[in-house]
Amino acid sequence: MGGKSAQGCIFASTKFMQRKHKRKLLKIIGHTVENLLRNLALLDNNNAYKKHLDKKSANFTALSPLTFIDRTAKVYPNHTAVVHGNIRRNWAETYQRCQQMASALSKYGIGVGDTVSLIAPNIPEHFELHFAVPMCGAVLNSINTRLDSESFAFILEHAEAKVLFVDKEFSGMVTKALDMLPNDFLVIDIDDVNWQDGELIGSTDYEAFLETGDQHYNWQPPSDEWDAISLNYTSGTTGDPKGVVYHHRGAYLNAVSNAMSWGMQQHPVYLWTLPMFHCNGWCFPWTVALMAGVNVCLRHVQADAIFDLIKSEEVNYFCGAPIVLNMLNLADSSLKSGIEHKVKVMTAGAPPPAQVIEGMEALGFEVTHVYGLTETYGPSVVCAWHDDWSKQSPKNQARLKSRQGVRAPMLDGLMVADPDTLIPIPQDGKTIGEIFMQGNLVMKGYLKNPKTTEKAFKGGWFQSGDLAVWHPDGYIEIKDRSKDIIISGGENISSIEIEDVLYRHPLVQEAAVVAMKHEKWGETPCAFVTLKLAETCTEQDLIDFCRAHMAHFKAPTRVVFGELPKTSTGKTRKFELREIADNNTASE
Amino acid sequence: MGGKSAQGCIFASTKFMQRKHKRKLLKIIGHTVENLLRNLALLDNNNAYKKHLDKKSANFTALSPLTFIDRTAKVYPNHTAVVHGNIRRNWAETYQRCQQMASALSKYGIGVGDTVSLIAPNIPEHFELHFAVPMCGAVLNSINTRLDSESFAFILEHAEAKVLFVDKEFSGMVTKALDMLPNDFLVIDIDDVNWQDGELIGSTDYEAFLETGDQHYNWQPPSDEWDAISLNYTSGTTGDPKGVVYHHRGAYLNAVSNAMSWGMQQHPVYLWTLPMFHCNGWCFPWTVALMAGVNVCLRHVQADAIFDLIKSEEVNYFCGAPIVLNMLNLADSSLKSGIEHKVKVMTAGAPPPAQVIEGMEALGFEVTHVYGLTETYGPSVVCAWHDDWSKQSPKNQARLKSRQGVRAPMLDGLMVADPDTLIPIPQDGKTIGEIFMQGNLVMKGYLKNPKTTEKAFKGGWFQSGDLAVWHPDGYIEIKDRSKDIIISGGENISSIEIEDVLYRHPLVQEAAVVAMKHEKWGETPCAFVTLKLAETCTEQDLIDFCRAHMAHFKAPTRVVFGELPKTSTGKTRKFELREIADNNTASE
Repeated sequence: MGGKSAQGCIFASTKFMQRKHKRKLLKIIGHTVENLLRNLALLDNNNAYKKHLDKKSANFTALSPLTFIDRTAKVYPNHTAVVHGNIRRNWAETYQRCQQMASALSKYGIGVGDTVSLIAPNIPEHFELHFAVPMCGAVLNSINTRLDSESFAFILEHAEAKVLFVDKEFSGMVTKALDMLPNDFLVIDIDDVNWQDGELIGSTDYEAFLETGDQHYNWQPPSDEWDAISLNYTSGTTGDPKGVVYHHRGAYLNAVSNAMSWGMQQHPVYLWTLPMFHCNGWCFPWTVALMAGVNVCLRHVQADAIFDLIKSEEVNYFCGAPIVLNMLNLADSSLKSGIEHKVKVMTAGAPPPAQVIEGMEALGFEVTHVYGLTETYGPSVVCAWHDDWSKQSPKNQARLKSRQGVRAPMLDGLMVADPDTLIPIPQDGKTIGEIFMQGNLVMKGYLKNPKTTEKAFKGGWFQSGDLAVWHPDGYIEIKDRSKDIIISGGENISSIEIEDVLYRHPLVQEAAVVAMKHEKWGETPCAFVTLKLAETCTEQDLIDFCRAHMAHFKAPTRVVFGELPKTSTGKTRKFELREIADNNTASE
Repeated sequence: MGGKSAQGCIFASTKFMQRKHKRKLLKIIGHTVENLLRNLALLDNNNAYKKHLDKKSANFTALSPLTFIDRTAKVYPNHTAVVHGNIRRNWAETYQRCQQMASALSKYGIGVGDTVSLIAPNIPEHFELHFAVPMCGAVLNSINTRLDSESFAFILEHAEAKVLFVDKEFSGMVTKALDMLPNDFLVIDIDDVNWQDGELIGSTDYEAFLETGDQHYNWQPPSDEWDAISLNYTSGTTGDPKGVVYHHRGAYLNAVSNAMSWGMQQHPVYLWTLPMFHCNGWCFPWTVALMAGVNVCLRHVQADAIFDLIKSEEVNYFCGAPIVLNMLNLADSSLKSGIEHKVKVMTAGAPPPAQVIEGMEALGFEVTHVYGLTETYGPSVVCAWHDDWSKQSPKNQARLKSRQGVRAPMLDGLMVADPDTLIPIPQDGKTIGEIFMQGNLVMKGYLKNPKTTEKAFKGGWFQSGDLAVWHPDGYIEIKDRSKDIIISGGENISSIEIEDVLYRHPLVQEAAVVAMKHEKWGETPCAFVTLKLAETCTEQDLIDFCRAHMAHFKAPTRVVFGELPKTSTGKTRKFELREIADNNTASE
């Protein structure tokens, strides 16, 4: 369904050959012109350090995280790379599968500038595609599996996907999305042997398609480290999802920065609790390759599976939102007992509450708090720990750790500033400003959205939309999340998107959505609605309406009817609504 | 002496302002033209990933190790940065001194393209200049303190030094060098409070010059990460020293690569046994800043001082040639006792012999064997350890560890190949080929030496001059050092340089120099000489002649008289001479 056959593509390989030559040619032209420029632009004729000292193949290679898997597969070929149920593959096998998949995609005609989309949980194929897709020059677009079919359709169309890999758990929702799309592209099923439910909807499957590739495919690094490597959609604060483009340079540097922030040792055993679709799993597929670690796969985030794997595989690293940590805290003590080794946990999305940190540490888990956005390759700020803080009271430690912190090793600039003047606010722990980032861990930009890109980069800094104070020790602490975002289960939900749906209901006159605390998900949307005069409908009516028009997890859990408070200029005073919502907690 | 006054430079600050503006302008021009080019060069008009997604200040920063000290000083201001005798400075103080020194240099007129030379042992000032000099845009040229005055003069002239910092221990030799030079440049004494001997010869001293700078100097990162950061002279295989130029990008990446190769944890306590003048201490000044560690300074490599510091400062990392490790092995057991913590040692220059490794491990020292050249920022190849090797016999472990290994994490290419065809040799552990490197850890090139640079980069790889076999597991092992180099006390000595001196002796008809084992220095030069017909002179005559014309440590220890063996084409069969030398060991 919705698929073009993988066979009989006579022109594909010709196209591939042309691409390969073009890339080589472009590389040569690029270097020549750059060198010419350097010499021309010099002005300073007396600078001996700029003469005859140009970039050459011998002394310049584009930074790309693809080099990590190449090295690891050659240095540690027999070390385990991936564990998933009964599947265990070492780095040599995994690398070979990546090369072969890159070859298959290339033979099919995929190359530089093409998008390959993917809807899958944290399974080996998802890991492999983080390498295979960019190896053939293309861009990986891993889509949030929890979205509704309309969002799938929007993204696939906006990304101009040429190929879609889909795990059969999600084929129902994807089928609906494909029905909405005019384009015809290749759909490839991922038929995970460890998962039974769901239909196969593609014209081929992962293993069959893989077979069409060459195991010894000679992939080339990108001609330019600024070339795109992946595309991640974020709901952001405005209606339609925005496509955040990552490049090879940034992915390389954030993969390294992750390892440094965490003090990660060689051969980590990394459990995939954090979705790989989320900012490319915060770039951890590339970090694990760099560190020659083990990817322990996990289809669903469930306490029993997590504790079983921590014990059986001796997992010593994983990432997760505070709600995941809380779920582990609340798990049955029989699950929790028997962990003898140290486990390092990275958390983000919300400050980890004191009782979560204490519970984790009682288990022997060491929690690192990080912060970032899709636009910053995931975590780019870290609450770097000071050893002498460990002497303070647990309460103080939790307070220190709840701060977002300082720039990660490879982030170049971080400040809290006045959003209009970009003048940094005083480091007094009181004044509130907006968080700004700068440098190599900031995205390439939003795809086909120059206006929004320009706005985000206004003044030479990336404007995060998050409000924070700056403490005298240089650590930042978020005080108010950017006004329109609700973080539920670690995923961003745009309140504007929900408001848009509510406005489509015939009885709704006005709507405003804010975050409300939720026992399980951290936050959940709470809608405030003014109905049209003389009309009535129930809370459940509006919730059902939203669920019918958007991903279920995005639909509001509570709807409150009444007049919306306004400013003198007629804007809704969301601040007041948040106060009302703050006094309530949802649990369903 | 030889100094231009630091005061009254009316034009210096104007020059600085112009430079600052030019750098900013160049940066803007650079970005604009690069982006233009990217869009022009595209050919592929359909690639949405290259449209409106250009480099901007918000999302691009030149890679530079200067960013490491900036971050560390802000995140860990109160952590100790430098220990030297009674001197202890934290990162905030050290960073401020670097900024102030950069400002002083800048005010004096030093900027982009200027060389600042330095002759000093491993003291705090040496560390600071690794940051201060590039902060004002200039290039650091740290010179081997063991050279003779002629070599000093050659380097200072070739490097076109504008400023020379000199520690008073070396002022005697430097005075002679300055007498040979026509140029007049600023000489600044380093008057180390922990060292009494030697004259002050400059027109100012470090602390006084520092005072002329602004503590809050707003240094700028390089406009281009390809800009030179340092200049390191190597004797290489030909006569005159060659100036190897490093750039900010490579220094950044090798600093990171060092930390990764070693599995270095945050806050290392690093002992400066390896000279900072040697490939910028293998880039470790920048690594220690990245990892917010402690620089434990050391003027002279002496066993008692080393053991004292390991114990008193809890040093847990240091680098040194196998002869340094051997010296520690042979030290009195009273010195060695009382070390409770783990120490990691990195060694290079020659494979560490089994008894050295065993001795080190008995002390609780873990040895990592690395390999590299001045041209590769120091170590770029590492004998990456496999945990299961630790189960093998000590003899086998020593054999495995004596191999040079695989590429370091940030080296992009490493191969053993036929030097003519560049075809990789079989990985059979038997065939001998030459070692080639590729990528970001290969130097920018040789200063003012385009021919030699071109030759070194022929075929798109850096030709190391070292001969090796390639084992089936991908590890390389040097079998014969590049034919003309003798490594004595960790320093390269060119046999050709010695031969050149010998040829200048009126009685010498022919000379060939090879390495001979030396109990203390690892290797020492052994000369084979044919005298002119009917002439006689003694071994001591020729040794004295050499010592009079070159650094003492380079002079041959043995001279053997006789006919030199030749090939059919008339070339000296050095291989045979090496066999003779191999059967002898010098001890003086």
